[in-house]
Formats: sequence, C-alpha cells, structure tokens
Amino acid sequence: MHSNSHSPAPRSKILVFGAGNFGSCLADHLADSEHDVYMWSREADLVEYFNQHHKNLRYLKDHDFSTNIRAIGPALPEADLIKQMDVLLFAIPTDGVRSTLNQLRPRLDEANLPLLIFVNKGIEVSSNALTLEIIAETCGKDIARVATFISGPSFAKEIVKRQPTMVSVASLSEAHAERASEVFHQPWFRCYTGNDPIGIELAGALKNVYAIAAGMADGLGYENNTRASLITRGLSEMTRIGTAYGANPLTFLSLAGVGDLFLTCSSPTSRNYTVGFRLGKGETLEEIIRTLGSVAEGVTTAKGLKAVVDDLGVAAPIASGVYEVLYEGKDVEERARWLMALPPVRELELPEKAGVPMRHLMKKLGLDT
Amino acid sequence: MHSNSHSPAPRSKILVFGAGNFGSCLADHLADSEHDVYMWSREADLVEYFNQHHKNLRYLKDHDFSTNIRAIGPALPEADLIKQMDVLLFAIPTDGVRSTLNQLRPRLDEANLPLLIFVNKGIEVSSNALTLEIIAETCGKDIARVATFISGPSFAKEIVKRQPTMVSVASLSEAHAERASEVFHQPWFRCYTGNDPIGIELAGALKNVYAIAAGMADGLGYENNTRASLITRGLSEMTRIGTAYGANPLTFLSLAGVGDLFLTCSSPTSRNYTVGFRLGKGETLEEIIRTLGSVAEGVTTAKGLKAVVDDLGVAAPIASGVYEVLYEGKDVEERARWLMALPPVRELELPEKAGVPMRHLMKKLGLDT
Repeated sequence: MHSNSHSPAPRSKILVFGAGNFGSCLADHLADSEHDVYMWSREADLVEYFNQHHKNLRYLKDHDFSTNIRAIGPALPEADLIKQMDVLLFAIPTDGVRSTLNQLRPRLDEANLPLLIFVNKGIEVSSNALTLEIIAETCGKDIARVATFISGPSFAKEIVKRQPTMVSVASLSEAHAERASEVFHQPWFRCYTGNDPIGIELAGALKNVYAIAAGMADGLGYENNTRASLITRGLSEMTRIGTAYGANPLTFLSLAGVGDLFLTCSSPTSRNYTVGFRLGKGETLEEIIRTLGSVAEGVTTAKGLKAVVDDLGVAAPIASGVYEVLYEGKDVEERARWLMALPPVRELELPEKAGVPMRHLMKKLGLDT
Repeated sequence: MHSNSHSPAPRSKILVFGAGNFGSCLADHLADSEHDVYMWSREADLVEYFNQHHKNLRYLKDHDFSTNIRAIGPALPEADLIKQMDVLLFAIPTDGVRSTLNQLRPRLDEANLPLLIFVNKGIEVSSNALTLEIIAETCGKDIARVATFISGPSFAKEIVKRQPTMVSVASLSEAHAERASEVFHQPWFRCYTGNDPIGIELAGALKNVYAIAAGMADGLGYENNTRASLITRGLSEMTRIGTAYGANPLTFLSLAGVGDLFLTCSSPTSRNYTVGFRLGKGETLEEIIRTLGSVAEGVTTAKGLKAVVDDLGVAAPIASGVYEVLYEGKDVEERARWLMALPPVRELELPEKAGVPMRHLMKKLGLDT
C-alpha cells in the first residue's frame, strides 16, 4: 500500500537482541526502512537457517525477511561489533534483561554510547523491578537515564504485513525518545514520543492481568456492556496503581496504555485472555497451564502486582480478584459477584500523595531533588 | 443470575420521558429495582399497548417489561403528576430537549425540585450546545447546576437481560450525582460518580465521530493494530478537544469516555461504525443514508465538531479527515494515507491554556469567579 522509499532517518547500524516474534518483526521493519540490521539469536540453527533462507525457523515462519538483516550468534556479540552500532534494540524477555546487560556492560563504550531501546514488557519475577531499574542496577544511572522504551498495540504478524501500527516511544531523556522515533517512524509505523517510561512500563506489564480478567468475564458468558466496563475499570485501576507508583496518570491514555490494553483484551488468541476465558469456563489453572505448555505472563505478573499493590496501599479489586482465583483457589463467578457487590464509589479517585517507588527509583538514577 | 431483591435506595417515584430503546430499558431497570415508574411517550398506540401487554411496540419487542411501569401520554404530563415525582429521567434525543424543557419548566416546582437526570448524548444541531447549556437556557442556572448526567457503555438489549453494566454519573453538584447513583445502583448496574458533566457530555457526542473513523479503517481492510491505534489516537484527540473546551482530561478515562468509545468502535451493529465501514468499502454517503433510512448521529456531530474544533484552534486530524470524507467528497483511502503521513509528534500534547467555552458556560451557570 505504501512505498518503502520514505526514510526520514539517516541510515543507521542496528543490532537487535532476540529473534523471537517481536524482535524479528522489528528487525524486518528496520531493515525495510533501509537501516543495516544485525539480529542476534542464541540459537545456532536459527542463525544459520535465517542467513541462508531469510526465514525465521520458529516465528512468522511464512514471512520472507528483508535481505538487509544479518543474523548473528549464538555467542553474544563482541565489543568490536557493538562499537560500530548506532542502535542496540533489546527484544528479549524481561527475565533475561539483567543477565544480558551484565554481560554486555563491559562491551559498551560509554563515551560513545549507541541508542539503547527496549521493547520487552513485564516486571522481573524475582524482584518486581521495572526494566528501567534493571538497567540502572546493571549499567549505571547515566545509561538508564537515556534508555528508551517502545510499547503499543502491535501484533508481529501485522507488522510484517506493513499494517499501519502506532507505538509509544518514551525515555526520561525526551531527546533520546525523539532519536528512537526517527529510527523507527514510517507512515505505516508511527511513533509518538513521551517522557514517562515508568508509566509506559507499568502499563505494559499490568495490562496482562486485566486481559485475564476480560477473558474470565467472557468465559462466564457476560456480553459487550460488561467487557467494555471491565476494560475501563481495569484501565482506571491501572491508572490508580501507576499514579501511586509515581507515573503520570495521562500516560495510561497512550498507545502503550489503553491501546495495548484494548488489543490484548479483545484478542481471543492472546495467551492471557485465553487463560482467563478457560478459568471462566470452569477449568483449573493446572489444566490450563498443562495444555498451554507454559504460563501466560499475566499469571506471573498478577503475583508481583499483588505485592506492589499491597505496598502502595491502593485499591485494586479487579487485580485482587484475579490473584485470588489464580493463587487462592477462589471461584471465578463468586469473585465476579463480589466485585459487583462492592459499594458505589467516585469514578476516578487517584491517590493525592504518592510516588514512593518512583522516588526510590529516581534516587537510583541520580534524579532526586 | 442475581436476586432482584437488593434495593439500597429508598423507593422512589420516577417519571421517564421517552419510551425508546434506552428510555424503556432504564424504566425496566428502575421498576425492577422496586421504584414506581411512569414512562411517558408521545405515541398513543405505544402507551395503550404497553399498559395492556407490558411490551414495547417498537423497541426491545421481545422483552416482558416490569408490571411496575405505567405508560402515560401522548400529552406531556401535567404539574400535578410531576409534583409527586422524586426523579425525572430524560431519555429523549438531544434535539428534543429544548422544546420539552420549555414546556415543562412552568410545571416544575423549584422549591421542591425532583432530581433531574439526562441520558441523551450528542450536541444540539442548530447551536452546537451541550445539554447542560440547554438546561441553563430553558430552566435557569439553579436547575442546571444540579442536573445530572448518566452515560456509559450500555446496550439496551443487554440491560434488559441484567447483563452487568457500569455507567458514569456526573453533575456539577456531586451530591446530586450521588443521589442519582443511589436510585440506579444495583450489583448488575454499577454507578460511578463524578463532577465533570461537560467532559461526560463531550465524550458521549464525540465518540460517534471516532466510531465512523474506526469503521472506515475496518472497511479499508486494516487489522487489529490499526484499530487499537486509531481508537487510542481518537481518544487522545477527544481528550485534547475536551481539555481545550474546559473539561478535565481524566474524564476521558471514564466509562462514558473510553468505555463507550470502545463499545461503539467495536460493534459492527452500531450505526456510526456501519456508516464508516461502508464508506471504507467505497460506497457514497448518499447511498448509505438512503439504505440506512436515516443519518447516523456521528455524521451530524462531525459537522458541529468541525465548527467547535476550528473555534478552539486545536489539532484534530482524525475528526477533520472524517469531516472531509463526509462533507467535502474526499477519498477515504487518500485521507487515511494523509493521516499516516503526518509528521511524528509528542503523544499527549494537551492545551495549556484553555477552557473558553467552559468559562462562558460557567458564567451562564453563575459559577464564574
């Protein structure tokens, strides 16, 4: 539909860490936008097959990838390659970020730092840390302060078809967010910049818990009014939690906020929605995990979120209900009735004095005043 | 699923103006909540049939309505009936509100005013006025200041099935919003109160324009990423317009805001979505209007919105695109490409100094300081 000739950014050398669904679709987008792209995978067979056939052995298998991508691995790239890069794009699971950054840190030249972009979502299981915090702990505050995050409603299989897609691009340094936007922006991949990476990260993690709730409601047989209301009250709850954490409430109106929440809650193919739907139909979590083959991210996040919400002392009845079904054996329909029987409240009650985790994180980043 | 015996509110006498889809489903809900309900219709046959059979001749035809509802009409009720009422609920089209209130005003006892609740959506075609402004002009500022508005994602056919539904209830007088919530609130009809009726009204009107845009995108063959992004950017645009008008940006996170937007944009049965979808498929507006039999509300609102947006001087590219397709004969796909080719911007750019229409309205309400 569009010409691929539009390339507002100067040609960049980009190294993508991760050759999964999302990493490889972004590598394809960037290569197609006339950047020189390297894609690292820890799987030797994938690397070899990709370079021979320009196909990904495990994801988006039907797609012919750009010949502008060179796969590398399985060893993590050395300093001499990294030194040539303008952009490092991290498309690895959140739980792999800490170890990858620990290995990479000695290979980074801080005086000549490439743009670091992260597209993983979710909080670290062991620590409940956001990626921004992991970066600060592994690479130091100067690197964390310029790290940039991209998130939004973006199915990989639609991105490789050049379906119009729009994302949030955020960094504490808005100049770096703008640079990342220049690298990625195309008419069919629009970037919108902002300066609240913490809100963006929280939204990306929390939405999975509310997608489980939306699935549960559908599984119980509730219809359109209920789904729209539940998504809205979930968004309101995410906003309350985010504000208590220290994020800007308006960030939840972003593509990474409400946009990704919509997409995840309206997609019967999404893993989190599926877990909720089958719980709503009366299956047990054990049965679902056994047949799905792995745990959906929201199941893990619901546990971390419970700890965060308890610490913050904010009301999060939907997330609590999901937690109680997943981890305390409560009945889905009984929890739904409990939610509906809660007393009426004001609609948008945000905490007035908040932001303790944000203040701790800002201190770690040397940004406390 | 739920017992109907739960009735937290004292039994009220309620007069519902309008026996359309939404008016009659709310009359049913209220009667089922053990209030005494009168439902006025200007159609004599509907009144007679309803009282004999407890069925609505024209809407929700399969539903057995509560025997607690008495239909009245076709003459507008006299002062002696109105004097007995605790609540007047207006479920008539926005373009009928002014003349109805002009007739009713002399029959209202201001010293003993019933609670006035409005559920119509949209702006008055001739004046671009919000309902709050129409109330101020017809009934005076003291009545407008306590008028209450209910809005949210609420298909009538699901409400009569007691599908869990949640709505925003807003008034400049939050005490009145709370009273309205007490009258309506049930576990299967949850009310959330707030004090920004202007934001609630704007959201209810504007969402129809963005539902046309969502339909256009689907008609053009765009998929999930695009729909989620377009709804999100539409919400962002609604928030920008609302803020420039003088509303609270957070109101757009409400059930009446994002909740109703989401429902309308995801419902292939909604009239506004259908108009957009068929335009996206290449039909002309004339053909669509001829076969639909009437104009979808968003088609009219797009024209009023154009004037409002021009006055406010805010950027509203999606609404402009819809307007240009509807009224200037522009091609849908060309306008979509134009939107996508716009330069990258910051994500949530809200006007800093704003609120001229709000200040004019507040002056009319005697609330300017």
